[in-house]
Parts: sequence; structure tokens; C-alpha cells
Amino acid sequence: MLVGMHPHQDGPLARLRRGHEDLVLELLRKHGPLSRAELGQHSGLSRTTLSDIVTELIESGAVVATAPGTAPRRRGRPVEALTLNPSAGQAIGIDFARRAVHVSAVNVAHEVIGSASEPHDPGLPWEERIALAERLVGTLANGGLRLGALNAIGVGVVGPVGDPDSGPAQPWPSTDLPALLRKRFQAPVLVDNNTRLAALAEATWGAAAGGRDVLYLRLSHGVGGGLVVAGALHRGAYGLSGEFGHIAVESGDGRCSCGATGCLETVASVGAVLAAYRRAGGLADGLAELLGALEAGDPVALRTLEAAGTHIGTVLAAVCNAVGPGVIVLGGELATAGTPLFEPVGRALRAHIMPISRDRVDLRPATLGEAGGALGGIALVLHESPLLSHYPAAPG
Amino acid sequence: MLVGMHPHQDGPLARLRRGHEDLVLELLRKHGPLSRAELGQHSGLSRTTLSDIVTELIESGAVVATAPGTAPRRRGRPVEALTLNPSAGQAIGIDFARRAVHVSAVNVAHEVIGSASEPHDPGLPWEERIALAERLVGTLANGGLRLGALNAIGVGVVGPVGDPDSGPAQPWPSTDLPALLRKRFQAPVLVDNNTRLAALAEATWGAAAGGRDVLYLRLSHGVGGGLVVAGALHRGAYGLSGEFGHIAVESGDGRCSCGATGCLETVASVGAVLAAYRRAGGLADGLAELLGALEAGDPVALRTLEAAGTHIGTVLAAVCNAVGPGVIVLGGELATAGTPLFEPVGRALRAHIMPISRDRVDLRPATLGEAGGALGGIALVLHESPLLSHYPAAPG
Repeated sequence: MLVGMHPHQDGPLARLRRGHEDLVLELLRKHGPLSRAELGQHSGLSRTTLSDIVTELIESGAVVATAPGTAPRRRGRPVEALTLNPSAGQAIGIDFARRAVHVSAVNVAHEVIGSASEPHDPGLPWEERIALAERLVGTLANGGLRLGALNAIGVGVVGPVGDPDSGPAQPWPSTDLPALLRKRFQAPVLVDNNTRLAALAEATWGAAAGGRDVLYLRLSHGVGGGLVVAGALHRGAYGLSGEFGHIAVESGDGRCSCGATGCLETVASVGAVLAAYRRAGGLADGLAELLGALEAGDPVALRTLEAAGTHIGTVLAAVCNAVGPGVIVLGGELATAGTPLFEPVGRALRAHIMPISRDRVDLRPATLGEAGGALGGIALVLHESPLLSHYPAAPG
Repeated sequence: MLVGMHPHQDGPLARLRRGHEDLVLELLRKHGPLSRAELGQHSGLSRTTLSDIVTELIESGAVVATAPGTAPRRRGRPVEALTLNPSAGQAIGIDFARRAVHVSAVNVAHEVIGSASEPHDPGLPWEERIALAERLVGTLANGGLRLGALNAIGVGVVGPVGDPDSGPAQPWPSTDLPALLRKRFQAPVLVDNNTRLAALAEATWGAAAGGRDVLYLRLSHGVGGGLVVAGALHRGAYGLSGEFGHIAVESGDGRCSCGATGCLETVASVGAVLAAYRRAGGLADGLAELLGALEAGDPVALRTLEAAGTHIGTVLAAVCNAVGPGVIVLGGELATAGTPLFEPVGRALRAHIMPISRDRVDLRPATLGEAGGALGGIALVLHESPLLSHYPAAPG
């Protein structure tokens, strides 16, 4: 869902325009300050076209024109030089998680320049969550963020996000949230599911950095995930992809929050695993105690994780056969259990994946933790709106 | 797997160059014959850049320059006009199926201008299959195909196709086949799995024409499929995607040709369904008799299809939850059973897909039949090498 972008333009002219802008920015990155004449030589663009492009880049804040004299020539009159604006091209990621707001920001070099988080009551009204996000972003601004030069904001939310027209009723004000954020930050806003964004973040900066085909599974209070396919975040026709938690497991009969029966989530969420541990006689108020029991070698705890891990690995094998990822990343609180979970997952995965794929997929723990959603928001901005907010939306 | 293409170039300059060529071709498609000056005005390109682009387009055969005089002006001397070459940009698709070779060709307007097929013994040596393909393509040439202007050939083969370095041993001479085809046809060759290509063809010209997120399942002697994701063919990290036939089914215990146990293929291939029908007391030498029994309302035949369809729908639901397609296309010989298969498939799909997705996915029979693989080869060429063989490969 793209909000605040120009209407989808993907004709050859729009693509060409974007290609021209990319080229000019790339040349300035590579060569440093250049005159308009030099840019013309390097780019092959006509004077008129180049002049249009440069004017827009300056207006958007991405490029600055230094006064004549600062770029001395060996002979003739000094000419104006064009340089990249070092504080431009920044992007902010905001993750409106169930019980916390996380924000992160990157500079034009795509380096993370700051992150901030604050937990809140799950019932906190949206107006206050947004105010909290604004306050957290403000703390980043003290660290050097120039809001005026913001490229775009990538926002993660709980629940499916699809096309605004076809999407289901959201637990957030679907038309107001992006508009509100856009107004407050004066920047375009891109919204996606926060678990899917965490998948993109793990494939960009985390456990699967650089991976082009990545499966991310998050085992938390819910079970969800995301797919990165050929280097891009996969959404599906209605934004309903990566719902691994709602794949049916063998002989599953538990009623799921989605309305179906026997979903992976009913046996592999933190709550489901704790309940199974208690049913088997284990004593644990929360995940911390269960993790402690695992560390102490409690056989009941180990068997509980073995059962959950087997279901998880079987579902992962089905998804692997369908989409063929190179890396599987396991995240969420339950994944912190480590070996007692990863071993049965890997075993069931190997048992059910096509034998030819067995040695071609890596199973790894997530590395970005809670920051994944916000970082994924930034990755979304960098993928879909490379440097400037006025770009037409990328296809797909 | 791209063979005979230039090395992967995806820098801003290569993209820009390709954008320039696309733009010039698009302007000629839209406006008809144009002079260089008119092309310059429409495109915004400098004279030098435009001259380079036009020279290459003429050399490659995509554009022809008409002699001065054929494009009269109201005043001044007559100028040369540039037009699209109507016989350029053709592409051939070849499907080396198990027991037949299929070929198809399209013109620059992407219209199918001819198709040809010939069955053969499954043991036919590769040299003879290639000769057969050449002969079939020759019959298309009589129909107006100019081999000299060929863009590229898209080739479908049986079995997984991945990166040549990481791929498994192929049942075809993996280094020789593309080289041989390239040499014979003097055109670049792109190779992919023929079932995946059929998926791309159904999403381009068939049951899901125009669909951007499509799941194609082929129920034949084997069970396989392909995914189209955001409008592009999905390959996976090692070319091992779309292997829906090797997803485990509930309480499946049949040994599969892939080496695993309980795969969908062991209960939903034509052979598996026939075997189940016979085990239940049905009499059928082949699929034709089973289809006849279904048409006659034979309850044993209907129950057999019900059981297979339930497994198929359950696996489809799992894949849908993971990748969220808008359309599911069922192809292959078994899909010709129609309602007795589609009904139980749809029922199991609806029972196991996330309730929120239930009404968002269409289940449709394939429409391209045996030609799908060859047409998919053409679609691959058009996707990855839009008009001219010297383009750098598309990203992804």
C-alpha cells in the first residue's frame, strides 16, 4: 500500500525520468561535485532534459548547487558545482507493534543513525501511539535527523495490509493513519505488515543479509512471517502472504484466532507452547520459566519444544518446496530457545523437504530482534522509493 | 538460467541505455514513422545519445530507416523516417517435454504466428530431439518467420533448472543443449523448467491472463507447478520452486520418485489416481476410461477423485497461505476431469485457507493445454529480453 506517492506511473517516460534522476545521483555519488557541463558529458542527456532533472533534484533537497567560485577551474570563469546533499535521502521506519512503538532512521548512505523504542499498553489509542512515534522520532532528530529532507516513512502495522479497496477492516484507522503520519512528518508514507517488514529487514541487514530468496518465520504471541523473493518483499495478490501460522498441521484440531482449525499457530505460538508444557505437567508462568527449564535440561520442556519444532519444520518444508528459499530465518521470542527448538525444526524440515533441496537451505536465528519491523520500514522505503519522495511508485 | 546473453549489467548506465531503447521503440510503436528530430523532441535525448541508440536499433534489425522521400514534409527537404521492423522482435518457444517437442513463435506485436508439435518415444536421444525441434521451427518459418531477426529462444525442459553451477545432474546435456540451440538458431537461449514456463504462459495468455500473482498446479504423470509473483516467474534460490507435488500430505506413506515419503504426487498424479481407482475395485486401463466412468457417474470413480481432490486442495491452501495468489490454475491431464475434481479441491481449499482469503482466490482450469510450455518459453523471452537479443538481462 503506497500512500502519498504520485499515482502509479510505469510508462517508459516515467521509467526514463526516474532512470535519469538515478543516473545523475549516481554520478554525483561516484565523482563528487560536478558542473552541469560535466554531468551532461557523463550522462548523455540533452541540456534541456538535464536542466529539468537538476532543477527538480535541487527543489527536492537531494542536490545542492554550490555558488560559483567554490569549484575552481583551471581556466575561464568559475562554474556552479552540483553536489549531493549529505542530509538528504534519509528515511524513517516506524513499527506500531502490539505493545510498543519502535522507530529507526538511516542517512543517505543507508547507515542506521538512530533507533528508539517505547513499550505501551496494548489498548493505547491510535492518536497516542502516533504522538509517541512523533516523540521518538524527535529524539532521533537530536541525533542529526533533518526532517525537512526526509525521503519517506515506512510503517509497519499488525495484521494483513493489502490494497486499500480490497483489504479487510483493519485494527487501525486505515485511511487516517497514513494521512496523519504524512501530515505530521511532511513525507510520503508506505505501510505494510510489520512481520513482513521484519522479513525484509533480516534479508537486508540481518541474518540473511544480501539473501535474494528468504523465508522469515516469527514465533511470538502469534505465528507469522514473510517472504523475500528475488530480492523484493513478496506481498501476494491481496497482501495476504507469509501467513505461515495459518497453514494446517497434521492432526491439528485447535481452534485458531483466524477462524480456521488446526493452524500452526495453535501449536507453535508462545502461548500454545506454554499451554502444552503445562498440560504435560510443566510449571511455567511465562516464557522465561520455560526457557529456564530448557536450559536446565527438563525433559518435559525438551519434549514440548520437540513437538512444536516438528510441526514448524514440517510446515517450513511445505513452504520450501513451494518457493525454494536459500535461507530460513527463525525469529520471535520462541526462537530464543535455540538448539532445543532449532534441532527438531531442522530434522522435520529435512524429512519433508524434497531431498534435492536438503542441503541448499540454511536455517538461521534472526539477528535484528525487536528493531526488525522499523528497520524493515526503512528497507521498504529504500526499495520502493530509492532516494526521492516524488518518484512514481516502483512497479509491483 | 540465461545462456548467450551479455553478462549481467544492472548499473544505472546499463539501465538507462535500456530505458532509452525502450523509449525509442515505444514512441515508434505509438506514433508510427518518426524522423530523428521528432524522436529527439519526444524522447528528450541529446542528438549524440539518440544517434547511438538508433544506430544500434537499426543494426539489430529492430528498426528500419526508410529512404528520404518516403516521409514527405510540408516544406523543406524530405527526411529519413524511422519505423519498427514488422518482422523483428520475434521469439520462439520450444518445449522439450517427456514424449513430444512443441514449438511456438510470436511476432513483434506478441501475437502467436504459429505452433507445431510432434510426439516421440520418451527414449529419443537429445540430438534427435533437437533436430526435431529444428524441423518444427522450419515449418513455422514457412509461415512467415524470419530467423535472422530472432530475438531469443525460450526453452522448457523436464526437471529442475537452476544455476548451472549449483544445479543437479540434468537428464539433458546441461552445457551442450543451450549451446547447440544457440548455434543452430543464431539466437540467445533461455532455459527453464517447462512446468514453470506453463505457469508463466497461463498468467500471460491463458486462464489467468494478466494475473500478477498466480499459482499453477499441473496434475499429470508427475505433479508440479509454478508461481508467478508480482508479474514475474518465480524461480527460488536454486531453481527449485513450484515443487507442489513434493509437499507432504496428511498420513501420506507412499514412496515418491523424489526420494521422500508421502508427497502429494504419490496420491494425485494420474498414475496414483488410477491405482487408487483400481484398488477400490474400479476397472480402467488408462485415464480415458476413468474419465468415462466419472462422466457415467460411477460412485467409485467419484470417491477416488474426491480423495485426491481433498489432498490437492489441502496442499493448495498451505501454499496460498504462504504466497497469497489471486488465481489458482489447475492443468495437466487429470484436470480435464472437471467438476468431480474441482469440487473437492475447492472444498478442501476453502476449509484450510485462512478465512480472510477464502473469497479472494479463483480456482480455474488451464486453457493452454500442451502448448503451455512452448508459449511460456516465449513469455520468458518477452519478460527477460523485451525486444532485442543484445539487451543486458533484466534484474532478478
